[in-house]
Parts: sequence; C-alpha cells; structure tokens
Amino acid sequence: MPVNLNLADGVPVAGVRLASVAAGIKRDGSTDLVLIALPEGSTTAAVFTQSHFAAAPVLLSRQHLASSGGAVRALLVNSGNANAGTGEPGLAMARGHAQAVAQALEVPLDAVLPFSTGVIGQALPDVRLRGGIEAAAALIRADAEGGDGAGEGIHDGPAWQRAARGIMTTDTQPKLTSRSLEVAGTLVTLTGFAKGAGMIEPDMATMLAYVFTDAAIDAASLDRALRGAVATSFNAITVDSDTSTNDSLVLCATGRGAALGPDHADWQAFVDALSALCLDLAQAIVRDAEGATKFITVRVAGGDSVAECRSVARAIANSPLVKTALFASDANVGRLLMAIGKAQVPEPANPVLSVRLDANRIDVRIGDVLAFAAGGVAAGYTEERGAAVFAREEILIEVALGRGEAVFEVYTSDLSHDYVRINADYRS
Amino acid sequence: MPVNLNLADGVPVAGVRLASVAAGIKRDGSTDLVLIALPEGSTTAAVFTQSHFAAAPVLLSRQHLASSGGAVRALLVNSGNANAGTGEPGLAMARGHAQAVAQALEVPLDAVLPFSTGVIGQALPDVRLRGGIEAAAALIRADAEGGDGAGEGIHDGPAWQRAARGIMTTDTQPKLTSRSLEVAGTLVTLTGFAKGAGMIEPDMATMLAYVFTDAAIDAASLDRALRGAVATSFNAITVDSDTSTNDSLVLCATGRGAALGPDHADWQAFVDALSALCLDLAQAIVRDAEGATKFITVRVAGGDSVAECRSVARAIANSPLVKTALFASDANVGRLLMAIGKAQVPEPANPVLSVRLDANRIDVRIGDVLAFAAGGVAAGYTEERGAAVFAREEILIEVALGRGEAVFEVYTSDLSHDYVRINADYRS
Repeated sequence: MPVNLNLADGVPVAGVRLASVAAGIKRDGSTDLVLIALPEGSTTAAVFTQSHFAAAPVLLSRQHLASSGGAVRALLVNSGNANAGTGEPGLAMARGHAQAVAQALEVPLDAVLPFSTGVIGQALPDVRLRGGIEAAAALIRADAEGGDGAGEGIHDGPAWQRAARGIMTTDTQPKLTSRSLEVAGTLVTLTGFAKGAGMIEPDMATMLAYVFTDAAIDAASLDRALRGAVATSFNAITVDSDTSTNDSLVLCATGRGAALGPDHADWQAFVDALSALCLDLAQAIVRDAEGATKFITVRVAGGDSVAECRSVARAIANSPLVKTALFASDANVGRLLMAIGKAQVPEPANPVLSVRLDANRIDVRIGDVLAFAAGGVAAGYTEERGAAVFAREEILIEVALGRGEAVFEVYTSDLSHDYVRINADYRS
Repeated sequence: MPVNLNLADGVPVAGVRLASVAAGIKRDGSTDLVLIALPEGSTTAAVFTQSHFAAAPVLLSRQHLASSGGAVRALLVNSGNANAGTGEPGLAMARGHAQAVAQALEVPLDAVLPFSTGVIGQALPDVRLRGGIEAAAALIRADAEGGDGAGEGIHDGPAWQRAARGIMTTDTQPKLTSRSLEVAGTLVTLTGFAKGAGMIEPDMATMLAYVFTDAAIDAASLDRALRGAVATSFNAITVDSDTSTNDSLVLCATGRGAALGPDHADWQAFVDALSALCLDLAQAIVRDAEGATKFITVRVAGGDSVAECRSVARAIANSPLVKTALFASDANVGRLLMAIGKAQVPEPANPVLSVRLDANRIDVRIGDVLAFAAGGVAAGYTEERGAAVFAREEILIEVALGRGEAVFEVYTSDLSHDYVRINADYRS
C-alpha cells in the first residue's frame, strides 16, 4: 500500500498526443506500450542513468538527443522488459523500433527516443513490439494532424492517465500530476508522469519520468532547467540504494504557449514550478516504494558542503538497520548515530574556515524531539517520545552537523517484510 | 542458523589469562565481561573503526595504545552495551573502568585497553561493571603470577571458549580458532576470537576481534602485520553495509615463544598465518550473519586497481536486490548487471595504458556457469543452470572486468525474511 500517495490530477498539455496499447510484453495483458507524439518545433531535454550497464534504449536516446539537437518528435516507451544487458542485438532492436516509429509518423530517425523498463537481460519480443508500434501509430495518425481538441482519446485527461499506467512495472499506482504558472497573462502548464518502486537510487535521473510543458523554450535552456530541478528531486530519493540501468527523465516543451527563457522575468517561476513538479513525482515513487509502510524525510543541515549533507543523509536513508527500525517504530537513536558515523565526509573544503566533523557538535532530531546533542543522548529525551514519532506514517529525521551552512534533504521508505517478499518472490 | 560455520578449536596461547564473568549487563544473565591479562613484555597492535561516532572505549583505547607504545597489559571487554553516543560521561566511565583494572592488576593506566559492544546510546551500568571487574581481576590475581599451567581455568581451552562466548551479542555461536607455524624448530601459535553478526561492513577493522600469539614481536612490526592482514579479511566482509561505532581488532604478542620480525626468514609465514586466521574469523562473522541462509563470495578480477575491484564487489554484495535474489535462489543476472553498473569506478589511473570500464568486455560467472559475456547473456546460459548454483549454500559470483590485473574478493550473506525480523523485532 502506498504511503499517502495523493497527487493532484494531471492536466493535458497542448500539442502532446499519447497512444497507449497492450502489445503483449507484460504477461498479464495490461497496457505496456506508450507512443507519445510531439508537434513540430518542440524542444526536448533529458538526463539518463550513469550506470556502466546503461540499457540499449538509453544509449540510443542519448545519441538521438545529441544529433537532433533536442528536436524530438516522438517518445516510445515499453514496460515489462528493460532491453538492458542485451548487447549489440538489443541495440539493433531499439534502433529498429525507433525506425518503425520514424516511418509511421514520418519524422527523422533521430527525432525518436526509445525507452524500456522491466526485466533486465532478456531479449525484447520483437514481433509484439512492432505490432504495438503499428497500433499506437495508427491511433496517432487517425487524429487530425496537430489537433488539440477532445479528439480520439489521445490528448485528453484519460489518455494521460492511460500513459502513466502503461509505463508501470511493480508500481501499485500511476504517478501523474501538474503545475502551472502565469506568464504574460497566459497560463503555462507543466504535466509529468513517472514510474518506479524498487531499484531506486537514481544517479542523475530516475527510473522513467516524462514532463511536458506547452511553453516555448529552446533546447539548451530546457536542459539547464531540467538539470537544476533533478538535483533536489529525483537525485534526492532512495528506496534501496540500487540504481537502475534504464533511469531516464525527459522534459518536452511543445511551444504552443508562452515563450520563456533564462532572460524572461518569469523564468525563475517556471524553474520553481518544474522543480516542484519533479519533487512531487520523485516523492510519489518513494510513497509507492516496494513494501513501504512509511515516508521518511532525512534533512541534514549545517554541513560544510551540499555533498557532505547528501552523503550523511544517504547513509541514514540507505542503512538497512535504520530502515528496519523505522519499520518497527523503534526510535533507535543508536542506529542513526551509527549511520551518520559511517558516512563518507570529505575533509573541509577550507581547513582554515571550517572544522572536521565533530560528533560533539552534532544534533539529531526525531520529528520535533531533540534526541541527541553535545555528544550524548539529549536531556529530556525518552524512548517513548521518539517511538511516538517513529510510529507515524510521515517521519522527519533532522541532523545538524554544526560546521557550516549547507543543507540537503533525502526522501526514503522503510525496509519491511514485504520488501523481502516482493523481491524474493517475484522476478524484476 | 549459521552457514557452514565450523572453525577448528582454539589452542591456548602461552602467557594469556582470560577471566569471564556475568556482570549483569546482559538481561539474560549470561557472561558479559571478559578481562584478559597479558604478561610483562607483551606487545600489542590494533585497528579501530573509522566511524565519526567512534565509541568512548575506542577513543580511550586509541589514546592508551599510542601513549604506552603498545606495552599493553590488559584488555577489558564488555558485551550488552556499546558505550557509544554517550558523550563525556561515557568517556569518563570508560576511563574509570580502565583505572579500576589498572589498580586491581597493578599495571599503568595506559596499559589497559577497554572495549564495549552492544546497544548504542545508553549509559553503561557503572556499579555492575565495577563489580564484574573486581570479580574477574580476583580470578586473575588468584592465579600464580605468570603461571601458564592448567591452573584456575583462566588459561586453558575452556577459558578461551568462555571468553569467545562472553563477547557475543546477536551471534549464535562463538568464533574462536587457531593457526600455527614452526619458527626455528619451535611452534608459534596464533589464536583469535571475534564477534559480530549484524551492523557489519568494517572500515579498517571489524566488530570486536582479538588475536594472540606467543611469538616475540616488536609493536611496530606487529602493527604492520596487522594492517596487512585486515585488508583482505575483516575489511572484505559485509552483511548489511552498516559500520559499527565500536569495531576493533587487536593483536597481542606475549613473547613467550620464538622471536620474529620483518627481517626473519619466517616473517612471511607468520604474516600468512595471521592473514589466514583473520580471514577465518571474518568469514565466520558472515556465516553467522543475521538471517543468513547462504555464504557468498564475490570475486572481481581484471580491474585497473584493487580499489575498483573492491568497489564493484561491494556494490554487488550490498545490493538489497541481489541479496534478496540470492535468498530466493533466483539466478537474476539482470540484478548483478545493475549492481556492477552502479559501482563507483574511478577513471583509469593511467589513461594511456588502460581503458574506461566497458560493459561489452565484462564477463559474469555464477559458480562455474558463464552467464554474461560480450555485452549480452552468454550463449548456452539458461536460468535453470544459474538457479542450480544459486540454490547452493556456498555461492561464488565472479566478475571479470577485462581491463587490468587487479583482483579483490568480498564475502557476504543473503537478505532474508529473518534479517528484517531480527532487526525489526529486537533492539540492537
């Protein structure tokens, strides 16, 4: 059961058409292929996994994004099979499917970005994929070119819901939501959807997430905005410290609405809305984490650098002993200290101005309860007060390092019996 | 249930006296305080946890070891309470207990090294500790000074067994064993014992381990031998990636037997025996890991450096998704690729002579079965062949990185329902 996963509905973005079909990749016959068409003049930015085993579609999408300069016209997403660890045959298959989309929609090959998610190390079912592409492309072609009205069910709210559901694997709920802002008297919309529940500690991106806006923004500016937003959202979540081979985050601007860029007065408002949307989607992944019973925010402040705050926050968020204590509602301060203690903290950037990490200057708060200070358990702290916080569904753990001004927050879930059951019993 | 944990019996080391008592720190009334006396002229080396939250006894033992120049006369170990996260009062308590030992045994204060293991963040029961120290010191004083015969039960085999049991916390079995070598016609004995089952990814040392030899070795040489042995033993194991606040590994030479040093013809044989003993004890900790059903060796070869082999091996050994697949006997090659993919691999040390990590050059073997090669699943590999290996109690995972000569092995356990049960249900 997801933990308080209640996203606002997603609002359609003008110009985006989404066709979702069941191609027979997933065994249960549910929707597993989504083809997204973008109007001419759209710009796209993306960030991808840093894994050494980046999947074939990631390798190809990176190439296409670079050679097209962000002039992307179609995204092809299949769930159920990651096309990762599949070598040269896997790459040829991804290229063949992109080619099929390019022909069907009459766009250049490098205007198509393919994505896959699911089991690693198995060949994609080529014939089924091609059948699915044909069916999805037919839905898009049947729609009047450029039509944005409530047409054939490929640009209305339900079409977005189907797409968000079509990219799911072990997710229990689709993750789709919107933000908007006013630019020069017109409304700019940002709508995105994401999938992911396990194998989650993104490194520059997350499982699969797609964000669309009707603003007109050049590809370079779009890229800059995306990299800023990802640092504190998708790159700040962890379920199990495991990084996927297929992580991709894509941002497309259809240009149907207001023009925006770094020199525009409303640029920062756009970047803020984008960051908020990405944070909503990233947190939704943690709320739907495999076996999760709690949503935990680990906030580390007072660091010498953001990097060291992130390192301490991740050490806590990824510690199996902290995560099992959270599951058990056991306010085990000792395990928090252990996790802080093992974090990789670099030497101070400026040894004159700052000091080494000193356990005697560190404060630890569980919710609003000061648990640890001045090198020892805080005066007035009792296990009962800590346990009352750990029993909640939403838990804040705050660490103040006491040697600088930097802050970083990481979002995570607990480690439950169900995490082991899900990952020992099912193939992912 | 431990996985094939069958250590050879420990042989007493001449000059070492061990008194084990139940001081009432553990609630179940079992033995929880061990006092070990060393004869005059003994030398001692030790390595300690790198945790930022190193426990009070670790801080004090580091000081004493340095100021005494390794001329240690007594080790005081309590289980049931780690005296970590206890601030200045905890440090004062550790100092007071060392002082009590020094007075009772008539040795200098800095010749006493205190150690604690157990719950973090709770005050030691001072009165009980002091009562235990008095009782243990009385047992040692009752023994004839320097007597090595089968005396009052403090230097025979059962005394070693009691001490190995007295330092246990969540361990299910004591971990005590010996190695020996012949030096100039006389037998040199090495005997050690260790504890640990969870919170195990030692960084420069492990939970608690004590190794003794009757050889005569100066403190500096002893230190060098110890640091060599720890790298491939205690620093090569991981249960849950969690590093304790109290990790300590101590090596004491009583000088009752043959003299040894780096210039001696048998020095390498001594170092080899020490390394083998440390590896036995370190692997025993993994075999007794919380909830373990399997013992896994992850061997990474063909790396540009030992550091990168260690990084890849640890990424596999610490991946919750790999560990649950091992528990389930699911030969999930995809999860192995994922873990290799996320490992932190530095740029090549020499970019002219070596190449970046390339997924297409990596081979993965499960036991004797080649599972992955040339960027894809290996020809002839079947899930059935992989699953047959993963169903074993002892599993070898081999990764060949294909870009250098370096090798590193890491030893780990699987992630089972019982790991979550043990750590969610019990306080550690």
